Amino acid sequence: MADYKAPQRDIQFTLYELLDYEKHLQSLPNYQEVGSDIVNAIIEEGAKFAENVIGPLNRVGDTEGCKWDDGVVTTPTGFKEAYQQFVEAGWPSLAHDPAVGGQGLPESLGMVLSEMTGSANWSWGMYPGLSHGAMNTIAEHGTDQQKETYLTKLVSGEWTGTMCLTEPHCGTDLGMLRTKAEPNADGSYSISGTKIFISAGEHDMADNIVHIVLARLPDAPQGTKGISLFIVPKFNVEDDGTIIDRNGVKCGSIEHKMGIHGNATCVMNFDDAKGYLIGPENKGLMAMFTFMNTARLGTAMQGLAHAEVGFQKSLEYARDRLQMRALSGAKNPEGPADPIISHPDVRRMLLTQKAFSEGGRMLIQFAAQQVDIMHGGVSEEEAKAADDLLSFLTPIAKAFLTEVGFESANEGLQCFGGHGFISEWGAEQNVRDCRISMLYEGTTGIQALDLLGRKVLGSGGELLKGFTKIVHTFCKENADNPAVATYVETLNGLNKEWGELTMKIGTEAMNNPEEVGAASVDYLMYSGYVVLGYMWARAASVAQAKLDEGTTETAFYEAKLKTARFYFERILPRTVSLTQTMLSGADNLLDLDAEHFAF
Amino acid sequence: MADYKAPQRDIQFTLYELLDYEKHLQSLPNYQEVGSDIVNAIIEEGAKFAENVIGPLNRVGDTEGCKWDDGVVTTPTGFKEAYQQFVEAGWPSLAHDPAVGGQGLPESLGMVLSEMTGSANWSWGMYPGLSHGAMNTIAEHGTDQQKETYLTKLVSGEWTGTMCLTEPHCGTDLGMLRTKAEPNADGSYSISGTKIFISAGEHDMADNIVHIVLARLPDAPQGTKGISLFIVPKFNVEDDGTIIDRNGVKCGSIEHKMGIHGNATCVMNFDDAKGYLIGPENKGLMAMFTFMNTARLGTAMQGLAHAEVGFQKSLEYARDRLQMRALSGAKNPEGPADPIISHPDVRRMLLTQKAFSEGGRMLIQFAAQQVDIMHGGVSEEEAKAADDLLSFLTPIAKAFLTEVGFESANEGLQCFGGHGFISEWGAEQNVRDCRISMLYEGTTGIQALDLLGRKVLGSGGELLKGFTKIVHTFCKENADNPAVATYVETLNGLNKEWGELTMKIGTEAMNNPEEVGAASVDYLMYSGYVVLGYMWARAASVAQAKLDEGTTETAFYEAKLKTARFYFERILPRTVSLTQTMLSGADNLLDLDAEHFAF
Repeated sequence: MADYKAPQRDIQFTLYELLDYEKHLQSLPNYQEVGSDIVNAIIEEGAKFAENVIGPLNRVGDTEGCKWDDGVVTTPTGFKEAYQQFVEAGWPSLAHDPAVGGQGLPESLGMVLSEMTGSANWSWGMYPGLSHGAMNTIAEHGTDQQKETYLTKLVSGEWTGTMCLTEPHCGTDLGMLRTKAEPNADGSYSISGTKIFISAGEHDMADNIVHIVLARLPDAPQGTKGISLFIVPKFNVEDDGTIIDRNGVKCGSIEHKMGIHGNATCVMNFDDAKGYLIGPENKGLMAMFTFMNTARLGTAMQGLAHAEVGFQKSLEYARDRLQMRALSGAKNPEGPADPIISHPDVRRMLLTQKAFSEGGRMLIQFAAQQVDIMHGGVSEEEAKAADDLLSFLTPIAKAFLTEVGFESANEGLQCFGGHGFISEWGAEQNVRDCRISMLYEGTTGIQALDLLGRKVLGSGGELLKGFTKIVHTFCKENADNPAVATYVETLNGLNKEWGELTMKIGTEAMNNPEEVGAASVDYLMYSGYVVLGYMWARAASVAQAKLDEGTTETAFYEAKLKTARFYFERILPRTVSLTQTMLSGADNLLDLDAEHFAF
Repeated sequence: MADYKAPQRDIQFTLYELLDYEKHLQSLPNYQEVGSDIVNAIIEEGAKFAENVIGPLNRVGDTEGCKWDDGVVTTPTGFKEAYQQFVEAGWPSLAHDPAVGGQGLPESLGMVLSEMTGSANWSWGMYPGLSHGAMNTIAEHGTDQQKETYLTKLVSGEWTGTMCLTEPHCGTDLGMLRTKAEPNADGSYSISGTKIFISAGEHDMADNIVHIVLARLPDAPQGTKGISLFIVPKFNVEDDGTIIDRNGVKCGSIEHKMGIHGNATCVMNFDDAKGYLIGPENKGLMAMFTFMNTARLGTAMQGLAHAEVGFQKSLEYARDRLQMRALSGAKNPEGPADPIISHPDVRRMLLTQKAFSEGGRMLIQFAAQQVDIMHGGVSEEEAKAADDLLSFLTPIAKAFLTEVGFESANEGLQCFGGHGFISEWGAEQNVRDCRISMLYEGTTGIQALDLLGRKVLGSGGELLKGFTKIVHTFCKENADNPAVATYVETLNGLNKEWGELTMKIGTEAMNNPEEVGAASVDYLMYSGYVVLGYMWARAASVAQAKLDEGTTETAFYEAKLKTARFYFERILPRTVSLTQTMLSGADNLLDLDAEHFAF
């Protein structure tokens, strides 16, 4: 069984056919030069790297894990060499500013690459992946000197970066963080404190690690308004990046965890470590929020990655494994039994994975195009519109795609029967690795509050309207398209209902703000199903047009039509239950005293 | 954090208050002597053993796992000694026939014990647990000599037993099995073949292991009608059980798997091993089906066990962990933040676990009482009615409770945020250990076919009617009970709809038998939600009666009422979506060619 095969045809479909990539890039001054030759070369070469170099290391990473010895972390066999190749090929700089050594390609293309590396080996992909947070922070808020010293090395991939937010007593609630930053005479700061859950906080893959650390200045205001950002390198360096000596930051231990064993999740102890303020004092959290959307989209990708991998593995198994006869008669009469893909319930599990994997790809690329637009050199107004749409889509993509990604990974395992529980098939690793995606970068519950409270109700419904208008336009344009007629009807209904549900919850929330938290996760999942319904309806519309044009790839486009049908008939009806539960009120959650949950 | 605390108060509620245990036992000739003093002593002592002896070994089992060396399997530290204590206390014989050394107590009480041992340490509990299958087989189909030689030692716990069904190329489809049994001159058989996934197939906890092996006689008919059952002991023994020498059966390896690391999942190689026919030739599979219900109820228990454990862990964490302020204002103004149990979405996750754990307990004990009745010395007619009800409930309990048990275990993990992914808290082990429950003893898909195809449609709807009548009676009796008025209305509607859905699918299936497989899992889940709805409505009715009587345990009974409300308002509406998807037809699953699932 192959470790991973990049779904190149489906990536092409999503970019070019569904989302009109050529026109999209040509409309953006900064990306006009990016032709399909570059895009295709990147897809092909990225696929080779993912399939041949890091895919085969995925199981190695799981079984070996990372090793910690007195602050030194050794990554699994082959990880370091693969990273070397990655850097030499220039991959880290893909979607970064040419001014600091980047290739200036659009974020959407960076997302194509991270889909492939992440699917092949999520643990490995996190080492370069985590650097983007540090790079974006320095790019947006750093001084020219900071950019020259740190950013160029991060963009080239010579160094990697981390984000040091969480502390033992605070994760979601960063206002409580305690790490201290005391000013030194030379303008630098002394950073002291303990950070936990620092992915790729320490490793042996790069010469230096640049930590972006959240800490408090002396006399900083309490809570989230007293947090500042600091660059704290593992090794102190000269302005030109020459390494001087070791800084006072050390990895205290690495966590034993359910999955992503190949990635080191570190406890980082800062003990008078030398740090440099980045951005204005006490505005650190706000600065971080400016690129939170991109980071969260990167985690949404994890849902897609594990759905895709689970699907690939279980599809191959379902075609090979012979067990029982189809209820309507033998499908493989020469064999001792039928392949299990003959059985409707196995198909239900496969199609669920397929619908979420391909649907997730559409959603993530649709969102990534908004990032392209924001950075594409367009008018402020256009950039604002893209930012608004991205703000709305991000919590949905992050929480919904990781939830259904985990469901998909589990269905993938289930297709294997008892063999799914056995490590050698890889399906169980896929489930374990996937599980963290619903936790980090803000749990599902936090994303749901962000969507319903901050984004939708916080904008007086405007951000929701921004998206429902898009759906409405699609429905209008396809009103006379028989291929999607029933989908248009369903979507029109959901579009209307979505607004009504929002109004109802908003009204209830005026009396009791707890109603927001009580409805939020159901509301988010509802939103996710509708958004993906829109994507699948678009895909069906495109596929039908191709068939009408007389394509030679009949089977490919018909599969799109059939998967869209599956989605609308077997998945989308979940909204009906969610509508009921989200409107059931906060009382049924709040009326039980905390002391009376168990006796 | 305690490893496990037996929910004694809730067990008492389920047995005595919900299910009228005293009356139940008094109505059964074989169990009339079993008084509440015995029952209570067993609950208390069983709880002590689970909490103090095996609970602390649960994490040890996960981290150490089992070790294999040239056919010898070593169980994790402490497992062997705990088993010794278990045997010395007489626990294995609890629910077995006094004629072979059993204590003659009812199966329902055995299930109480296995809930506690299984929750405390599922991997450990499987060693004695698997013996029951072997015991039941010999008890029902063995000769007197076989009973004397093997059964007495199994009942005492000196030896353990296994069921050897699965082979590498067949699990669900046992008709394909290849293990051979050649007759010897002395009336024994030579057994040769490879069995996989044999839980507790080899270990160091008991002096001998009695394998019940499915194999084919020479010239046996093909398929399931050519399977016979054999006793194959690890050590050959004299008639009185004295050990002679090692038999030709050896553990070839143990599996590396997602969870239940403390239990050895063995490849067993039979190489001219000496075996003894049990029951009639070629009727082995049928013989096994006679106690399949009990075995599957034992796996249903695993869903409950992990729901309960996840709930206990996450409840404790949710009360302790301070993070963010409640949206309606501080609940813990003296502290730096509110305990996360203040937040409605955390409560939603806790109540989901609570509703499934307590609801699962009710369902399993309700089903176990049917086993009691079957073995209780009642008339053939009464026994048949109990058997029918059990046959109907078993696939629901097995598949539904393991599915929602896994959901609960995951919600438990989710309550911990990022800490849920870290091994030390135990929430992730709970998820990993739980995952197998949806696979072994027949996957969810197989249970669903058993329910809809074999049980419901196969009985012309009679088995369904047997249960809906019970619901109907409850609804009639409670028609004027204001405490459950809305639940009665909902249940009446669902009861009616259940029959209609069955009719519709049955009608479709006459044209296309694949419709059964296409609807089956949704149908099963729908059935599970309704059955649990009935249980929760009964619980509410009982709780209200206690409150009306003026109980001193007001908080306990009010918590029941509130959890019932949560179940009806937040969980049961899932049936609405299932209704739509189960009726969506087989076409949307079958119209995609197997070759066209991916390109």
